[in-house]
Amino acid sequence: MEELRPSPANSSPLTPLGFLERAATVYADSPSIIYNTTTTYTWSQTHRRCLQLASSLSSYGISRGHVVSVIAPNVPAMYELHFAVPFAGAILNTINTRLDARTVSLLLQHCESKLAFVDYQSRALVLEAVSLFPPNVKRPPLVLIADDDASTSAQTVDSNFISTYESLVVKGDPGFNWVRPKSEWDPIVLNYTSGTTSSPKGVVHCHRGIFLLVLNSLTDWSVPTQPVYLWTLPMFHANGWCFPWAMAAVGGTNICVRKFDASIIYGLIRRHGVTHMCGAPVVLNMLSNSPDNEPLKNPVRVFTSGAPPPAAVLLRTESLGFIVSHGYGLTETAGMVVSCAWKRKWNLFPAEEKARLKARQGVRTLALTEVDVLDSDSGQSVTRDGSSVGEIVLRGGCIMLGYLKDPIGTRKCMTNDGWFYTGDVGVMHPDGYLEIKDRSKDVIISGGENLSSVEVESVLYSNPAVKEAAVVARPDEYWGETPCAFVSIKEGIKQKPTEKEIIRYCRERLPHYMVPKTVVFKEELPKTSTGKIQKFVLRDIAKNMGSVTTTTVMSRI
Amino acid sequence: MEELRPSPANSSPLTPLGFLERAATVYADSPSIIYNTTTTYTWSQTHRRCLQLASSLSSYGISRGHVVSVIAPNVPAMYELHFAVPFAGAILNTINTRLDARTVSLLLQHCESKLAFVDYQSRALVLEAVSLFPPNVKRPPLVLIADDDASTSAQTVDSNFISTYESLVVKGDPGFNWVRPKSEWDPIVLNYTSGTTSSPKGVVHCHRGIFLLVLNSLTDWSVPTQPVYLWTLPMFHANGWCFPWAMAAVGGTNICVRKFDASIIYGLIRRHGVTHMCGAPVVLNMLSNSPDNEPLKNPVRVFTSGAPPPAAVLLRTESLGFIVSHGYGLTETAGMVVSCAWKRKWNLFPAEEKARLKARQGVRTLALTEVDVLDSDSGQSVTRDGSSVGEIVLRGGCIMLGYLKDPIGTRKCMTNDGWFYTGDVGVMHPDGYLEIKDRSKDVIISGGENLSSVEVESVLYSNPAVKEAAVVARPDEYWGETPCAFVSIKEGIKQKPTEKEIIRYCRERLPHYMVPKTVVFKEELPKTSTGKIQKFVLRDIAKNMGSVTTTTVMSRI
Repeated sequence: MEELRPSPANSSPLTPLGFLERAATVYADSPSIIYNTTTTYTWSQTHRRCLQLASSLSSYGISRGHVVSVIAPNVPAMYELHFAVPFAGAILNTINTRLDARTVSLLLQHCESKLAFVDYQSRALVLEAVSLFPPNVKRPPLVLIADDDASTSAQTVDSNFISTYESLVVKGDPGFNWVRPKSEWDPIVLNYTSGTTSSPKGVVHCHRGIFLLVLNSLTDWSVPTQPVYLWTLPMFHANGWCFPWAMAAVGGTNICVRKFDASIIYGLIRRHGVTHMCGAPVVLNMLSNSPDNEPLKNPVRVFTSGAPPPAAVLLRTESLGFIVSHGYGLTETAGMVVSCAWKRKWNLFPAEEKARLKARQGVRTLALTEVDVLDSDSGQSVTRDGSSVGEIVLRGGCIMLGYLKDPIGTRKCMTNDGWFYTGDVGVMHPDGYLEIKDRSKDVIISGGENLSSVEVESVLYSNPAVKEAAVVARPDEYWGETPCAFVSIKEGIKQKPTEKEIIRYCRERLPHYMVPKTVVFKEELPKTSTGKIQKFVLRDIAKNMGSVTTTTVMSRI
Repeated sequence: MEELRPSPANSSPLTPLGFLERAATVYADSPSIIYNTTTTYTWSQTHRRCLQLASSLSSYGISRGHVVSVIAPNVPAMYELHFAVPFAGAILNTINTRLDARTVSLLLQHCESKLAFVDYQSRALVLEAVSLFPPNVKRPPLVLIADDDASTSAQTVDSNFISTYESLVVKGDPGFNWVRPKSEWDPIVLNYTSGTTSSPKGVVHCHRGIFLLVLNSLTDWSVPTQPVYLWTLPMFHANGWCFPWAMAAVGGTNICVRKFDASIIYGLIRRHGVTHMCGAPVVLNMLSNSPDNEPLKNPVRVFTSGAPPPAAVLLRTESLGFIVSHGYGLTETAGMVVSCAWKRKWNLFPAEEKARLKARQGVRTLALTEVDVLDSDSGQSVTRDGSSVGEIVLRGGCIMLGYLKDPIGTRKCMTNDGWFYTGDVGVMHPDGYLEIKDRSKDVIISGGENLSSVEVESVLYSNPAVKEAAVVARPDEYWGETPCAFVSIKEGIKQKPTEKEIIRYCRERLPHYMVPKTVVFKEELPKTSTGKIQKFVLRDIAKNMGSVTTTTVMSRI
């Protein structure tokens, strides 16, 4: 058997890029993207446009291994860039539109972005970000994704931009021979999980990982061909859990949307016959609490992750006709790698029990090799009793290559024992289902955005009046969690800052969603005998404070 | 980016074996296998039994890289061996029960089988096969898969066997630590495509290839979780196109069946609520022509391959409630890699036009990188006009590692240009859909069995009276094709053989299904100027002869 080794015919690199070519053949005339009332593309048009854009990128000198950034909401351009950028051989870097200019600047510098696509609504943000570049650092040329209400001919750019998106598409060659990866381990995307501090965590995934995650997600969620997929989950969140590529694989229709609230979502579901969507539990909350809610004519499947959906929200949402699936993933896993595979017999259980079961993260998906919970002292698997806690570890083809320019960070979470350490704390139930008990101590999830408590603390510590600071999650009916800061003030400070002042101080230095919604002043923060702040004590206090937001306060995120 | 390379956490080998472990967690109490009225296993039982069997194999010295053979129909043991053998690190070699003893002997010797599982109905066949081993060649120990009607305790074996299947299961350790592949390129199965001549073609697939084919088949056929799958396709045919592993991936129920006819199939569909099945067009024929046919209460999805389903058969079958999908694959591709992806707009077409479209092989599936048709002279892609013929070539992760002990044969079809050459002749339609115009000139497909005309010819040539022989396919209403021999007799032979005598001569030397159903005597066979027999002329003659079998003759295969 030894002479039988991989050969060129059977070892062509796995990549999700070929899905688009196939879609252009099979689903040629079917709609690929629908946006507002003005834009509808077919799969052969999308294929053609992506090749044209790749060709233009190529003629601007973008090539293998370059990073190309984009800062945009879920507009058609954002979708197309998921193919066009890697078609040019480059690595796609999506940037969260909610970040502040300083952070955007840091990220663009860190990844040495060679070109950045900028949605017109993020124009001021990115221009400021670029102005913050040190004089000796090369700034990326910018391409404007113009206002979609403006006709293409009316799209002009000032000297800050080298082109508009549409003119790059128009002047590109649809016969462009796209750049195949040399190896399936070649990088395809770069996603930052945090970055306001000096060491941004840039997660790099390869073609193989994304390919596997797509097949994995399609099988796990039993996605049929030609679904109608509503883009509620931002594509700048871990590439929308890889659904841009997955939709090409099954010839789905992408309903793109710049901004939404419950009434917009219900309208799109009605108009387009939406069958599938993804979103953080905050979206479920929005859907079920909105005065616009209405029972669905046909079921809509919703995949949710980031936090377990609260029982009440789940019940309300499902009673309207949504079929909710719950799973678990991280930016480092490219999307869902653990999901709460539903057992038929559970359908017979009372609603509360069903909700309790569905709140568990579940079991590994097909392309994940293994999931386990390891005791932090012994490093051994915890007892499967639903109460012994440990760190959740994963192994498999969807785990990232590593963090960009951060070999120490990479080694810290991907050790030689072959596990990826998530930093999340969980238990394993006797039936083999995983449940998270505590997200990584440093992470607060607010409205689907992960934010690092450490980063907020470092801003608080930079305030001259602050002696000690600790930020924990405060549970929230609407946002899931909000950041809650516990602060002690230096002795001798005469004009002690107020809660409002501390919040304003943070707002000037952090993206809006990272700013504490609550500030609690303490004489001294609780500490262990060795002087470490006891965050679990603070978490208990925050928990008992209840929700900041009531569910009716906001319906737009 | 260069420092980001594969590491132990993200590069664990892809393998289908983990699907069973997962099924034992998710589908623990759900039925995995149903057989007759006596046997029902759950997924946790199947998982346990496979580990036990692997443990017993291991204690018999079976280990990494060994070949373990099985000759059996679609009984539960056959299913379990698809996990148990590779769980022990070994390579599963399934052998067609319809072969003759000489061929079985050749195959067992060729792969140096370390152990063979023998269904009780193939007992005499295998004992004869083993008796044909040369004295200096080690014979594999045999394990008996006993008559399922006999109770386990009554299963005794004579000295020809080292054990029964059930006692190997019973005495094995359910806590066995199964042997993980060291590399995803490690072999997992060996399937012979032919073997009556001196150089059997043993197709070897690796863990990665099978893993990819499973995800590929599930997405292409949109298989939901927990289907009810009827085993009409023999598992000894390219591992039943990988559905043993696929069913574990989705927690399906395997309806195993030793033998079937239309009435048995309709009975099983009714009793178990069958949702999916695979089979050659001959099975569709059987279902639609049987007097037992009946409109289905719920639709049953049938995947067919091997030959395009004739329009009349397709219409009749679909009118009964079967939903037929058509695809293309070879033993060398482990299963379906091209399929006739159906376009919604085609549903509006007249029935005849629909049948014509469905008879095309189609487009590449997600895990196949590329399919093309190459002009045999220029080696370039043929024009996509539906009429320019060329050889069908494939590239992708589901292509075999190669032929066992046949580096020349492997190199011949897997050349350095990165294509696998199928030997099949086809055209590419303007819409990018592939259609086969002529199966490989040497292959005749009769009742779903591929048989090599060259092998039949070599037997004919061994007859002292035969001067020249050529075997081609004769179209058949029931079998699809049957072998038709054209023979010229040596001059000076006084007692010229009759058709019956030639057939009897073949029957003594070939498996039954390979024996020509028709023998045509010719003074001389038509030849080219260079003396090559013009098979296309003979094919035309055979075509005009019409069908040997009428559709009512047989309903049992």
